[in-house]
Amino acid sequence: MTTRVLTGITTSGTPHLGNYVGAVRPAIDASRAADTESFYFLADLHSLIKAQDPARTQRSTLEIAATWLAAGLEPDKVWFYRQSDIPEIPELTWLLTCVAGKGILNRAHAYKAAVDRNLAEGQDADAGITAGLFMYPVLMAADILLFNAHQVPVGRDQIQHIEMARDFGQRFNHVYGGEYFTLPEALIDDHVATLPGLDGRKMSKSYGNTIPLFASPAELKKLIFSILTDSRAPGQAKDTEGSALFQLYQAFATAEQTQAFARAYAEGIGWGDAKQQVFERIEREIAPLRERYQALVARPAEIEAILRDGAQRLRARYATPFLRQLRDAVGLRDLSSVTTVAVQATAKAALPVFKQYRHTDGRFYFKLSDAHGKVLVQSQGFDSPRDAGQQVAVLKNADSPEQLQSSAWALQVPTDQVLAALAALRQAATQV
Amino acid sequence: MTTRVLTGITTSGTPHLGNYVGAVRPAIDASRAADTESFYFLADLHSLIKAQDPARTQRSTLEIAATWLAAGLEPDKVWFYRQSDIPEIPELTWLLTCVAGKGILNRAHAYKAAVDRNLAEGQDADAGITAGLFMYPVLMAADILLFNAHQVPVGRDQIQHIEMARDFGQRFNHVYGGEYFTLPEALIDDHVATLPGLDGRKMSKSYGNTIPLFASPAELKKLIFSILTDSRAPGQAKDTEGSALFQLYQAFATAEQTQAFARAYAEGIGWGDAKQQVFERIEREIAPLRERYQALVARPAEIEAILRDGAQRLRARYATPFLRQLRDAVGLRDLSSVTTVAVQATAKAALPVFKQYRHTDGRFYFKLSDAHGKVLVQSQGFDSPRDAGQQVAVLKNADSPEQLQSSAWALQVPTDQVLAALAALRQAATQV
Repeated sequence: MTTRVLTGITTSGTPHLGNYVGAVRPAIDASRAADTESFYFLADLHSLIKAQDPARTQRSTLEIAATWLAAGLEPDKVWFYRQSDIPEIPELTWLLTCVAGKGILNRAHAYKAAVDRNLAEGQDADAGITAGLFMYPVLMAADILLFNAHQVPVGRDQIQHIEMARDFGQRFNHVYGGEYFTLPEALIDDHVATLPGLDGRKMSKSYGNTIPLFASPAELKKLIFSILTDSRAPGQAKDTEGSALFQLYQAFATAEQTQAFARAYAEGIGWGDAKQQVFERIEREIAPLRERYQALVARPAEIEAILRDGAQRLRARYATPFLRQLRDAVGLRDLSSVTTVAVQATAKAALPVFKQYRHTDGRFYFKLSDAHGKVLVQSQGFDSPRDAGQQVAVLKNADSPEQLQSSAWALQVPTDQVLAALAALRQAATQV
Repeated sequence: MTTRVLTGITTSGTPHLGNYVGAVRPAIDASRAADTESFYFLADLHSLIKAQDPARTQRSTLEIAATWLAAGLEPDKVWFYRQSDIPEIPELTWLLTCVAGKGILNRAHAYKAAVDRNLAEGQDADAGITAGLFMYPVLMAADILLFNAHQVPVGRDQIQHIEMARDFGQRFNHVYGGEYFTLPEALIDDHVATLPGLDGRKMSKSYGNTIPLFASPAELKKLIFSILTDSRAPGQAKDTEGSALFQLYQAFATAEQTQAFARAYAEGIGWGDAKQQVFERIEREIAPLRERYQALVARPAEIEAILRDGAQRLRARYATPFLRQLRDAVGLRDLSSVTTVAVQATAKAALPVFKQYRHTDGRFYFKLSDAHGKVLVQSQGFDSPRDAGQQVAVLKNADSPEQLQSSAWALQVPTDQVLAALAALRQAATQV
């Protein structure tokens, strides 16, 4: 079975080496795993909760998209899209809002932390807190549930959000009586390297100790040479344990290279030489990425086209038909399918119809036509009426675009219309 | 100036005479006022907060839509649509969520009432409360602000929600530095009749004292005859003051008819005769509506088509271009318009262009063409280059479909494309 793995990408700030080693590189490696359908999306609707500088939001989205593409994400092999290009996400957000317990949202860590800060400062609990921060977990649940993702790789601080997505999905399934949503699981990889920053603490924007991923070679070198080291002189053995420089090297080197570097430490390599080696090792991996990145950022229209294309295909494949199903589940339905006696007579008269027949070539065919006789689906020829009948049964149960793909028949109208006709037939069959 | 008036219609329950007299009839009268652009929408996304029975949601939407159409709403003269057919509404809901203060939502009456009930029962404050109830005012703000409604007719209990919509709209305008939203005003009509129910209290579903609007004549008669009256015998003068029967009559009668009925009261009409007169008066008004209603409900596909058509036209006219403008405001922008030196060169090359010229007929013209020379807008002929230039200036500032409507020029491509071209020109003009 194919596992659907969904990764949200924050569209704020400028990516640094820590993001690359801790998030981008492992995610792209994972996207190449067999039996995996990967979803990567730029979470720009989420970014609006904090970012209220439109030019920066746009610029940041461009840079982050270019970073992932430069790092090797293949938009023809994975789903790569921008959250705000999928209107089904905010639509599903509202459907989930209507089943999400407010009490659960009160307990979200990020919201509670903001409340605690307010209270510590003697302010109102919700001072300056927007509904966006509070509703963040519902939007995130919609991101995940819309694609029925099985796994969501997250840090430990995000496990709670995945649990909330499970809760909202389960609640929806329960209220509307169906297995609409797959319940996602958090995928925690504790082996992912955390990179140390310039001061030895974890590399993080909030510590101001980062090395920008696409710094120029000169800047990269300068920053690496500014990494804190101890005062041992050349010739004195150095400790690899606790050496930020060593960890940085390790994150970019093979096991053999790392062993050789450890030997150099033991043999008393000078800090200047060690830093030069780290710079060269990192530069070797980053240089081609940097080149691709710069070429990409200079052609933003191409990135725009890639993102739009991803969203368009993804909507046609999953989001649009699935949201239609969910709308039906909650009762946002085509009124013409309403179930009453008076109405049923009309509806029946207007129902599409299957016809099986034998053609002059002696073979057996079927077609699905609408109430006005317009052909929606035309079958190929079969050797026996039984073969044709079996395919009619298969087609009758199709309720996704994939299930309509068959060499046994050809659609004569757009997929949507065929699915609607089949749904109408099935609904009529269950009416009293 | 045209005043935009927006009315949300609850899609739950079956309409009764009180709804008709208090809401439907006055709203339809108001829709015929001059200089008014009226918006009527079936608030089915709101209904999901409470209604979790899909078949009832669908049935109720059909009945309520049929009621308004039967009562005389003219879908070719007003905007009549279903909320869930406008995906821009949930999209805007999220944009507003990101600026809405959570503290303000805490103070919403409906939410506070639910909390108070919980606390009175010794439960957790938020027990059983969904995020839907809590976020209701943000969705309502999106309903209103998306169409820049000037006025929203509401009951006194809804004034707070209009104030919240103003607050969220104002906050968005402030954060993103523009007059994006018109701030709506609550329109309170204290003269609207409240109809008494069978027991003399206000007719309301929660009192169980209603008369269904489309009860059969026999049922209508039976219900009217069951209205509580005092025990005065025929021949004894009756009090009109405090008589539910009299108020019911009045709600359907002219001033003269009401005077005559008051005289009959004074002259001691028997209750049976009085009830017969009330029944006949109401039946006279309702009978043609009932007939239209039944015909409409029997053809749900037509109602579906009317609603879809309304939503489609409304989206093209307002929702889609306006949301595009709002997305641009918050930074959800086409990446190819990103403002960097490298990028700007590309963007400039691809910009649309205005050209002014003199034709062989001696008159002065202008046109707006895209980067490939395709004409987007063609002007009429002007007597002087100054006249043409003035209209160029007007067109350059147009940023809504209405502002594109002018006898000075004709659009050669869809409105959307012209607006996008003008926006691109303005954006380029503000770039460094």
